[in-house]
Amino acid sequence: MRLRLDLAYDGGGFHGWATQPSLRTVQGVLEGALATVLRAPVTVTCAGRTDTGVHARGQVVHFDLAAGDLVGAAGRAGKDPLGGLVTRLNGLLDSDVHVDRVVEVPEDFDARFGALWRRYAYRLADRPDVVDPLTRSHVVTWRRPLDDAACQEATSGLVGEHDFAAYCKRREGATTVRRLLDLRWTRTDRGVVEVGVRADAFCHHMVRSLVGALVAVGEGRRPSSWPAAVLAAGQRDPAVLVMPAHGLTLEEVAYPPDDQLAHRARETRTVRGLDKPDLPESSLSDG
Amino acid sequence: MRLRLDLAYDGGGFHGWATQPSLRTVQGVLEGALATVLRAPVTVTCAGRTDTGVHARGQVVHFDLAAGDLVGAAGRAGKDPLGGLVTRLNGLLDSDVHVDRVVEVPEDFDARFGALWRRYAYRLADRPDVVDPLTRSHVVTWRRPLDDAACQEATSGLVGEHDFAAYCKRREGATTVRRLLDLRWTRTDRGVVEVGVRADAFCHHMVRSLVGALVAVGEGRRPSSWPAAVLAAGQRDPAVLVMPAHGLTLEEVAYPPDDQLAHRARETRTVRGLDKPDLPESSLSDG
Repeated sequence: MRLRLDLAYDGGGFHGWATQPSLRTVQGVLEGALATVLRAPVTVTCAGRTDTGVHARGQVVHFDLAAGDLVGAAGRAGKDPLGGLVTRLNGLLDSDVHVDRVVEVPEDFDARFGALWRRYAYRLADRPDVVDPLTRSHVVTWRRPLDDAACQEATSGLVGEHDFAAYCKRREGATTVRRLLDLRWTRTDRGVVEVGVRADAFCHHMVRSLVGALVAVGEGRRPSSWPAAVLAAGQRDPAVLVMPAHGLTLEEVAYPPDDQLAHRARETRTVRGLDKPDLPESSLSDG
Repeated sequence: MRLRLDLAYDGGGFHGWATQPSLRTVQGVLEGALATVLRAPVTVTCAGRTDTGVHARGQVVHFDLAAGDLVGAAGRAGKDPLGGLVTRLNGLLDSDVHVDRVVEVPEDFDARFGALWRRYAYRLADRPDVVDPLTRSHVVTWRRPLDDAACQEATSGLVGEHDFAAYCKRREGATTVRRLLDLRWTRTDRGVVEVGVRADAFCHHMVRSLVGALVAVGEGRRPSSWPAAVLAAGQRDPAVLVMPAHGLTLEEVAYPPDDQLAHRARETRTVRGLDKPDLPESSLSDG
């Protein structure tokens, strides 16, 4: 049987998502807890492999196991083995990672290739009286005030399907074409800037670079037309800052209805982009 | 000259507000930073002495210094000595405490006796899918779901001027009469319960005990009328839990206009309560 597991974590205490020898990673602690509860090695596949320091509220993974493993592991929670699994996992995990739910999904469900879109948020506090020690884990303090109207204007030139090479850490042979569905610069009621970004997939450092370009506009160093001009130039511009990791949170991943899962996974695995083949790796990195 | 300083802190790393030998306290680190910048010992007086683990977003203190001290300390920021003081303090303080602003106030301003009211918030996540590792420093995880309507009904019997002896850690000779101006049980858009409480002042453990009584109602262990019945009984009921400290945040303290400061401070210092003299200490403890 295939299971989908939704989880949230504070990335501050992890060396990113992917398992690394002798480093604490989210995949490492999650697979460790699963192996303890299920008494068998488990390998999980995630929707967005977050970098060191990046958080998640809506990370999704899938993994497979034999139905018998689950019944054995659930123990006294036999009537609700998946609920029992969640409880036991959260009992083992530290407080910086939390399993929200586990559900059985069709064999066609693929957390990685089946996703329709990923949504990230980047958070900034740009005024001294907005700095809040209670949210310092995931809101970046910015020393100069940012102009909301200029930033909002700058977002419009970036939405759509483009080659985001200028905003990506390039990987050999991987396309950098992505469909940016939404990019919104919002001022919340607490005065924090929240940049919401939604795309079919992101390449490495993409959200943090897009926000870096908007911040240059917000500070008045560049005109509102600049982020789109950088995009059109098609290569990395050293004037675009890659913003600090801890402002970034993977908020949500969306999947199609069950009867379209197989189609979506095939579609993602095939050629993506304008003129070159996609390598699966490229669609997975966090923003 | 008298200065007012507004600050915020994550109480998780502090042994409460008040200076204690060899323990890290908010007053201790703040007075230490002030002494370093001003090159003279400084004693601050605060609006609400928070317990170990309790947070603040709107703590207010006052302190006095000679105008010459400030000019010397501001150094290169000579044109804006108070802005320079804020910058230098935040440069010295760790990231779990932040000075929002410093302003000069009339000599009659008293952070402690001059306050009109204090507002606290208590935050709870009562559903497994609402547990958020990013806010675990100040939102308490509660294992049983809470009934909003029952809790909202229960709040109504507590608002007003009452003897809150049933909800206070009693102190010898101190009145426990308080005017509870607001008590609201709200479900935020993220599903977190936020209990907002506003009163002229609070006695020790008052907010945490009031929330404990509401939680007993929310779980269905007690009827909605129970918190008011406990209040009327006038003595502590062992069935009322004192909720964990880290869910509590001092959000705001309000003061009268400058021309009423002296009157307010005199008023607070004189007899308060229905039938016994107030001791100043009793109006200061956090909730």
